[in-house]
Amino acid sequence: MPLALRQLVTAGNLDNLRLAIRADSAPDGDEPHASRASGVTPPAGLGYHGPVFMDSDIYKTLEAIGWQLESGPSQDLENFARSTIELLALVQRPDGYLNSYIQASGDPRYGRLASSHEMYCDGHFFQAAVALSRSGTATGRQAMDIATKLADHLVKEFAGRQKGLDGHPIVETALIELYRATGTVAYRDLAAQFVEQRGHGLVGDSGYGRRYLQDHEPVRETTTEVGHAVRALYLDAGVTDVATETNDAPLLETSKRRWADMVATKTALTGGNGSRHNDEAFGDHFELPPDRAYNETCAAIASFQWSWRLLLATGEAKYADHMERILYNGFGSAINTAGDRFFYVNPLQRREDHYERDDPGRRREWFKTACCPPNTMRLLASLHHYVATTTQGSLTIHQYATATITGADLTVDIDTDYPWDGAVTVRVTSAPAAEDGERELALRIPAWSAAAGPLVVELNRSPERFVVPPDSYLRLRRSWRPGDVLRLHLDLTPRWTYPDPRVDAVRGCVTLERGPLVYCFEQTDQPARLDELAIFPGTPVTEQTVTLPGIGPTIQLAAQGRHTTQAAGPAGWSSRPAPIPVTEQPVTLTAIPYFQWDNRGPGAMRVWIPAAHAGPPAP
Amino acid sequence: MPLALRQLVTAGNLDNLRLAIRADSAPDGDEPHASRASGVTPPAGLGYHGPVFMDSDIYKTLEAIGWQLESGPSQDLENFARSTIELLALVQRPDGYLNSYIQASGDPRYGRLASSHEMYCDGHFFQAAVALSRSGTATGRQAMDIATKLADHLVKEFAGRQKGLDGHPIVETALIELYRATGTVAYRDLAAQFVEQRGHGLVGDSGYGRRYLQDHEPVRETTTEVGHAVRALYLDAGVTDVATETNDAPLLETSKRRWADMVATKTALTGGNGSRHNDEAFGDHFELPPDRAYNETCAAIASFQWSWRLLLATGEAKYADHMERILYNGFGSAINTAGDRFFYVNPLQRREDHYERDDPGRRREWFKTACCPPNTMRLLASLHHYVATTTQGSLTIHQYATATITGADLTVDIDTDYPWDGAVTVRVTSAPAAEDGERELALRIPAWSAAAGPLVVELNRSPERFVVPPDSYLRLRRSWRPGDVLRLHLDLTPRWTYPDPRVDAVRGCVTLERGPLVYCFEQTDQPARLDELAIFPGTPVTEQTVTLPGIGPTIQLAAQGRHTTQAAGPAGWSSRPAPIPVTEQPVTLTAIPYFQWDNRGPGAMRVWIPAAHAGPPAP
Repeated sequence: MPLALRQLVTAGNLDNLRLAIRADSAPDGDEPHASRASGVTPPAGLGYHGPVFMDSDIYKTLEAIGWQLESGPSQDLENFARSTIELLALVQRPDGYLNSYIQASGDPRYGRLASSHEMYCDGHFFQAAVALSRSGTATGRQAMDIATKLADHLVKEFAGRQKGLDGHPIVETALIELYRATGTVAYRDLAAQFVEQRGHGLVGDSGYGRRYLQDHEPVRETTTEVGHAVRALYLDAGVTDVATETNDAPLLETSKRRWADMVATKTALTGGNGSRHNDEAFGDHFELPPDRAYNETCAAIASFQWSWRLLLATGEAKYADHMERILYNGFGSAINTAGDRFFYVNPLQRREDHYERDDPGRRREWFKTACCPPNTMRLLASLHHYVATTTQGSLTIHQYATATITGADLTVDIDTDYPWDGAVTVRVTSAPAAEDGERELALRIPAWSAAAGPLVVELNRSPERFVVPPDSYLRLRRSWRPGDVLRLHLDLTPRWTYPDPRVDAVRGCVTLERGPLVYCFEQTDQPARLDELAIFPGTPVTEQTVTLPGIGPTIQLAAQGRHTTQAAGPAGWSSRPAPIPVTEQPVTLTAIPYFQWDNRGPGAMRVWIPAAHAGPPAP
Repeated sequence: MPLALRQLVTAGNLDNLRLAIRADSAPDGDEPHASRASGVTPPAGLGYHGPVFMDSDIYKTLEAIGWQLESGPSQDLENFARSTIELLALVQRPDGYLNSYIQASGDPRYGRLASSHEMYCDGHFFQAAVALSRSGTATGRQAMDIATKLADHLVKEFAGRQKGLDGHPIVETALIELYRATGTVAYRDLAAQFVEQRGHGLVGDSGYGRRYLQDHEPVRETTTEVGHAVRALYLDAGVTDVATETNDAPLLETSKRRWADMVATKTALTGGNGSRHNDEAFGDHFELPPDRAYNETCAAIASFQWSWRLLLATGEAKYADHMERILYNGFGSAINTAGDRFFYVNPLQRREDHYERDDPGRRREWFKTACCPPNTMRLLASLHHYVATTTQGSLTIHQYATATITGADLTVDIDTDYPWDGAVTVRVTSAPAAEDGERELALRIPAWSAAAGPLVVELNRSPERFVVPPDSYLRLRRSWRPGDVLRLHLDLTPRWTYPDPRVDAVRGCVTLERGPLVYCFEQTDQPARLDELAIFPGTPVTEQTVTLPGIGPTIQLAAQGRHTTQAAGPAGWSSRPAPIPVTEQPVTLTAIPYFQWDNRGPGAMRVWIPAAHAGPPAP
């Protein structure tokens, strides 16, 4: 967070707010700059810094601060929030409008919604205000004042009209958030309107076509995720929100159907989405290249949020399972061990000679388009909200972490070293009196653990075995007493993972997983060139707890493989048979958790590694 | 060609020339438009049509006409060439400068060479002039006058100076062509200067970085092809030209080294280059995705031209082998059977649900950036120049086609139905008298034929067997007599082709080739969904001559495979094991030559198909 606060100064995000205030102080009719129909990058010379959505980075940071302050006070963070909200109060126009780029440039409001990101920024501000308001501070109240004034302005401008839609969804979800916080039905209805209006060409063209903007067909008819991945996933989070808050079961069904299609056919093993650098977009079904996957960090966050909403709407464990997959892998990889470098793109393979203009293949301190790092912050700062839920008489634990949780008249202390250790201790510290009836404690059993065999649970030291179907919860209903101790043993035995045979890009490959962690093979841990190695799937896997420089404590996995030295020199297609191996010798291959890669310098990495017996058939 | 002549009118290329003439007629100092630092797309409202390199489409068409007229007169083509050259004479400024965009816009000359394509257009005009001049007509002479005036202007502006380099190479090769046609050493020296100056940041930035423009390091130090594929390949053709004409052996070595690296590690089986849609660029070593390959048609043409120059410089058959691979596959696929639709992108796989904003996956009639169709024309119209070469006392046949060839005092008639039939008859119709000594007739034996076993050649009906090493020529030196008949039998037995095991994207797959033709599997010919099929490599392949609707005559190949129906519903990663096959039955898979694909509607296609015994290992 200190890094983010510095970057918002260095990159000029806060200067943009001041620029907007000065521009608005200019005499009426003396617009500082003529209108123009530019794209995402404003013209030079304006004084404005960065892309048109720079405000959203501030808002994401404010949202992160809101969640972070729930964990304890911080003078620095509170000062930043207060001064920034005060600045925003000055930027906001009397009618509620708020956007530093439009105000600084004098471009017409809502004149090019396909690329202006105006409501995208609004949405991020709504979410920031909701988070800040949880603290009950004056800053939180001021933020909510700005937010409701801005939302009222949107209602006035857009409700019941065909005036336009933002090219980048998120305002849908954010309006629902604001509706939940304020009870103002007009916000919910505007979100619903935006969802329904999409798919009819109302967004206009940002130069990337209608599919890119999810404006190619109505959302009720769309069966698969297409276009820019982050936009598609934020939209679907909003669709789920709208369906939930309007009790629109058919709309919810479309969202569930797209989620299932996406997870099965357009999602990397790490939970990452977006197969193409081109347009940062979803690809075709089963187009899942490990090397060229885009898997933007923001897409992982958006998918996490969408899955959370489906979990709340349905109670089905598969959504929580997927959130865990994203959290520990496709999202977890975005941050280095030291916490000061970020991935924007999260591929599952890096070649030794990797070069890519739009992605260096290494984590970076910040980005020109800096959507990812502050997005990372707001998810990390709000993680405690995703751990458990309550419904009538039931407390459900979705994610395992050391925590104290209160719900359904129960308070439990959870103690665990998950994901490194599968033991989870749940100690009841407070419970209703016996005459107040039974309560249910529901614990998610991840699919990989359920598949490994019967689940061993000890209740007050007496072990019991449960057969839990995959994607399900272990539900224990009883009169709980303070002092009751439940010990859950999730099975973290390392397992071989095989791709769907329709995924062309990783055919003949396998990988290792351990609990929720996807593993990968980094060059530095191998006895020979990574592209000359193959592994014997199904053979025993050894695990070792180690402390690695640059990484710290981790658990390495090792298995037997072979090293095949190619015939010298390049092969090419002119010689028909596959190159003849000149040597082939047994070696041990070592893997580390994927989220910990790229903490030890450059070099090749791969999640999927060729299976030794699935090598190229001899000619 | 008639299509191209229409398109140059419809797309506005010729109108641009007239616009330039009118702009130049404006009084001095009254520049029609203010300078601007725009990119490849000119601003609207100028009256100018299309991207800044529209002139080059005209020039490529003129070049094609020049070559085409060698095959016989055509009033339409001659009229077009004459009127267009006359128009260009009016466009050309008194000092030799010629560029419709710069002249129409008033943008400064050479003000943004990284993206203006000025010398790129010049280069294409030089090549057009050289081609037109072969006809010996007044139009040809006028074209050469314009060309030399333009080239003299370039020499005056750039020779011996650090003034700049064009972001898109081709002028290097074209200046050498012009040097060969005129003997003007300054043209050769300017080409050499441009080659040497590259790699020092002199090009500037077009927004895509220096690697994209091959300006990242000096060409003498570059070991592998990087950046925009067409630019890289045109540059290397120019490097080879310069090395040849200046007897610069070390420079030639760098070109040979990059070619070997490219063919072995960065070239598709079809001869296509450019693995990424992003930047239309070369990828990392062994990054060769069949589905996402860009393989631009222009890159195939550029690679063909580069290989030709290396063939001339070295006499090594591998370059002619590669030209054949490109010609019949990666280039051949660019045109449909009817000859009126073109591929810009030539992937090796199309999925059933293919969608891509920058490429529809179907051939199109024309393109906004229309580099490929006229480039296709100029190669097709000049193909007769690539068939054979002569050196002292030797006539070498590189490519097989029905033809009459004269060289080394010999004239031979070649009769063949190649590539469908491997029989090639070479009949000597004229030869020097016996006392004038022996002559060598050298015939390229493609690597795939040489690898298949001893070569059977009949000389005047008496068969003889030769063992010819791959990538080599059969050299027959004797006193040839008119009436001598040589019959060559190239072995077209269909063969299984296996990828290099380092090509991740097609691991566990195989394909079929027959002679120079790469084969592919189109959905329409298969008994079940293409993505549920696998093939048994090494099993017998049957061939059948058929006439297919939309394609016409072809030879189909068929082999045994299996159809595996997946377990119903999507699998996803939440279930650990690979989906369990519910049925598996033997089927016959049918392939057609790759260059003939997409003539029968949309649907899935793949060159590389999973090997049945290399499927995913059972969990």
